[in-house]
Amino acid sequence: MQDAPFQIADRVYGSRLLVGTGKYKDFTETRAAIDASGAEIVTVAIRRVNIGQDAQAPSLLDYLPPSQFTYLPNTAGCYSADDAVRTLRLARELLDGHKLVKLEVLGDAHSLYPNVVETLRAAETLVKDGFDVMVYTSDDPIIAKQLEEIGCCAIMPLASLIGSGMGILNPWNLKLIIEQARVPVIVDAGVGTASDAAIAMELGCDGVLMNTAIAAAQQPVLMASAMRKGVEAGREAFLAGRMPRKLYSASPSSPTTGMIG
Amino acid sequence: MQDAPFQIADRVYGSRLLVGTGKYKDFTETRAAIDASGAEIVTVAIRRVNIGQDAQAPSLLDYLPPSQFTYLPNTAGCYSADDAVRTLRLARELLDGHKLVKLEVLGDAHSLYPNVVETLRAAETLVKDGFDVMVYTSDDPIIAKQLEEIGCCAIMPLASLIGSGMGILNPWNLKLIIEQARVPVIVDAGVGTASDAAIAMELGCDGVLMNTAIAAAQQPVLMASAMRKGVEAGREAFLAGRMPRKLYSASPSSPTTGMIG
Amino acid sequence: MQDAPFQIADRVYGSRLLVGTGKYKDFTETRAAIDASGAEIVTVAIRRVNIGQDAQAPSLLDYLPPSQFTYLPNTAGCYSADDAVRTLRLARELLDGHKLVKLEVLGDAHSLYPNVVETLRAAETLVKDGFDVMVYTSDDPIIAKQLEEIGCCAIMPLASLIGSGMGILNPWNLKLIIEQARVPVIVDAGVGTASDAAIAMELGCDGVLMNTAIAAAQQPVLMASAMRKGVEAGREAFLAGRMPRKLYSASPSSPTTGMIG
Amino acid sequence: MQDAPFQIADRVYGSRLLVGTGKYKDFTETRAAIDASGAEIVTVAIRRVNIGQDAQAPSLLDYLPPSQFTYLPNTAGCYSADDAVRTLRLARELLDGHKLVKLEVLGDAHSLYPNVVETLRAAETLVKDGFDVMVYTSDDPIIAKQLEEIGCCAIMPLASLIGSGMGILNPWNLKLIIEQARVPVIVDAGVGTASDAAIAMELGCDGVLMNTAIAAAQQPVLMASAMRKGVEAGREAFLAGRMPRKLYSASPSSPTTGMIG
Repeated sequence: MQDAPFQIADRVYGSRLLVGTGKYKDFTETRAAIDASGAEIVTVAIRRVNIGQDAQAPSLLDYLPPSQFTYLPNTAGCYSADDAVRTLRLARELLDGHKLVKLEVLGDAHSLYPNVVETLRAAETLVKDGFDVMVYTSDDPIIAKQLEEIGCCAIMPLASLIGSGMGILNPWNLKLIIEQARVPVIVDAGVGTASDAAIAMELGCDGVLMNTAIAAAQQPVLMASAMRKGVEAGREAFLAGRMPRKLYSASPSSPTTGMIG
Repeated sequence: MQDAPFQIADRVYGSRLLVGTGKYKDFTETRAAIDASGAEIVTVAIRRVNIGQDAQAPSLLDYLPPSQFTYLPNTAGCYSADDAVRTLRLARELLDGHKLVKLEVLGDAHSLYPNVVETLRAAETLVKDGFDVMVYTSDDPIIAKQLEEIGCCAIMPLASLIGSGMGILNPWNLKLIIEQARVPVIVDAGVGTASDAAIAMELGCDGVLMNTAIAAAQQPVLMASAMRKGVEAGREAFLAGRMPRKLYSASPSSPTTGMIG
Repeated sequence: MQDAPFQIADRVYGSRLLVGTGKYKDFTETRAAIDASGAEIVTVAIRRVNIGQDAQAPSLLDYLPPSQFTYLPNTAGCYSADDAVRTLRLARELLDGHKLVKLEVLGDAHSLYPNVVETLRAAETLVKDGFDVMVYTSDDPIIAKQLEEIGCCAIMPLASLIGSGMGILNPWNLKLIIEQARVPVIVDAGVGTASDAAIAMELGCDGVLMNTAIAAAQQPVLMASAMRKGVEAGREAFLAGRMPRKLYSASPSSPTTGMIG
Repeated sequence: MQDAPFQIADRVYGSRLLVGTGKYKDFTETRAAIDASGAEIVTVAIRRVNIGQDAQAPSLLDYLPPSQFTYLPNTAGCYSADDAVRTLRLARELLDGHKLVKLEVLGDAHSLYPNVVETLRAAETLVKDGFDVMVYTSDDPIIAKQLEEIGCCAIMPLASLIGSGMGILNPWNLKLIIEQARVPVIVDAGVGTASDAAIAMELGCDGVLMNTAIAAAQQPVLMASAMRKGVEAGREAFLAGRMPRKLYSASPSSPTTGMIG
């Protein structure tokens, strides 16, 4: 069976796993892990990672050449629409007019939960300004719809909080988002291990983005390989159409209906 | 990182996915799915599948040559120790003295839950009789220990009921079984989709055995590939050592401790 | 042990269970169920229930006298801030200057998920206009904080979608909301049975509001009694301080830490 | 609505909550907590609690007079059928021919998981010997059936391990046990807080037995009251017939069917 192409903005990708570039020991490990992950899109926190802001320091661009990887500058560390917009304009300059970006605006430094009101504001400005905006957001399906209507090219709801590794806390909200979306839905944040990535894909997500789950594993390169397989396993299982769930083989009905009471 | 070898009885296998051979459209589909799964060990219900009992009918042996696959005759459909022992002795004759078998003794035809008392009895007889017994059982850790002490060469607890596709209902019991076992622990029954297989491996199981999840998928061959990747993803994630779970990134403690109350 | 008083705006209540008045067979059943629930605050959908809008039809006021119950007019069926504000101003007139209201602005008629942007707008207007606003919202902790800062007197996050009976889908988000709030947090929507109400209270919520779970039970009056006890049980368990969770009695650690991998 | 009577052996009880008597600060606290729980049946570990074995020490009988409470001597700390049988014969002597007992035979001191093979053996002996045997067991439905066929007067499956407070780990197994049983099914072990007790009753259990959840709460007497209400709430909710679960109000189907994939 032929899978539908995985297209973001105007490009088609072979891998549905997108990865971050932070929290590694050094750029060599970053590169090794990303190679093992098979990712073609790499996201970069403009406020934290050197891609030319500091001409004296080693640059990620030397380890992950933009000719081989699609860069996705992101606004990690921004708590207002203004900050986020400013950060992405800087990235565009540093990357010679690069348009594809990942917007995230957080609500507080404690939980790192997204601020959806500021996210909507920033998205509006950025889309008008010609950016292709992939947008990190909560799992609120109404906000997801509004972000799509503004013109974002991918909706990226959280599975759980950034850096938590808690997996998918509310698959039902993701389901609502997936069912209504006409742009790719990519789970971003909260994946902790390979099965979490597989579950996201089995739900019908188009892709998964992660950073800490790979970088903070005891063996990042091996975990990157696990994630690659987890995403592929989940995608294939989604396309293959799983068997129905039953309480037991001979049971006439699905297990939840009337399970309690 | 080099994984420990996956050894059953006296042989080492490359694949940690074991598959059944029933419920397919025909033997051609059976073979295609098993090829896609990468499985090296295939289990056969001696009471249902022809491996020579009926010399006139097509035989599975022609589609899955024993020179290429390790056969694992099983006792599906047996509800007493005596029936199971008789069935496996027949299998040994049909397969020229083949010793590796899968024992299962069920409690009733309604739930297909194992009868652990009869399973213990049959295991004792079969081990004395020279069989290498891989044993299907419930997730009761005390019974698992007893089966190991009898001399079974692999413990195969259920994830959930046969044919249910409910996934792993009680990971805590599996954890107890894995922690104490000195022979391979292989989750058998209940896996419904690729993430279930990944979760089993992430828990520390040595392998996964399944049949319905592949054969009853809408596209069995694609699901077989998904399962292969799911098992590999889960194994690699287990070896890689996952990041810790936290309620949020800055949280000092794990999420369950004191979560409620 | 003396519980802290349960205060909303300027009044203290004995019952932490708030109930709706819709979906019953008739006003007599409504009254019987509410009596069994022990609720002192009853919420009324101004657009659906007659409290004087139609002078010819039977009025809820005759069955639930405002002298005995605190009325909480709500904006069920409103999809914009303007509609919600208009509806509550009408309610204030019908109820002689009554200030305590429940604001809800929904995102679409399909899922009934809240529209948090319009909810923020309406809350701002209503608070300025002198209302005491109890506000229905999603489980987004940043929005919850903003609603509190606007001056809402109670935050009412969903457990799951209105009319779903799915229980608490994301207890972790509720936990974040409860930890930061300085006004009462009342779970509203999604409770399906008594244990759901108990769990909400064990999480530390100050109260629970429900309608369908009682009105759509096969025996609403008996379910109302169950809910009363469920809320009290959960509150007492919260105050009593539950035993720690462990995988087994002798286990040194909490069960989630390192459970998988 | 009139509930069916809760009958154990030949007596009918008003309370469906059974409680243990161990782990309290002193007998005065034991009594206060049991009064708050409303329990009429109290279980006593014959090997640990003095009911006359030591004529010099304070006896539980003075604090919980057998004229007011039904005693249920239990075999906590027994790891073989022989030990358990011997212990209950001693109890019968100490309690003047008392027949109603709780049998438990554990598999190891580490997990406290039941040894179902020894439990079956002990049950057989005790029933033949004239005891009314309430039997603690795993959640294995085949073993539960066998214990009922032997003549046990109540089946008491675990929710989770003794002293763990993990709640109900496998409601599906409990459901299988409840559906087939013709004697009372009482969840025993693993309840941690009031909602756990409510869930057990909503599943259709006839009662709940607990000890640690009350005795190890920070405020045992208040938790005892919470448990009383939790059991009653769950029972009433079970009888009232809960609303159906749906992903959202307008959804045509139950949430699990086809949720993933």
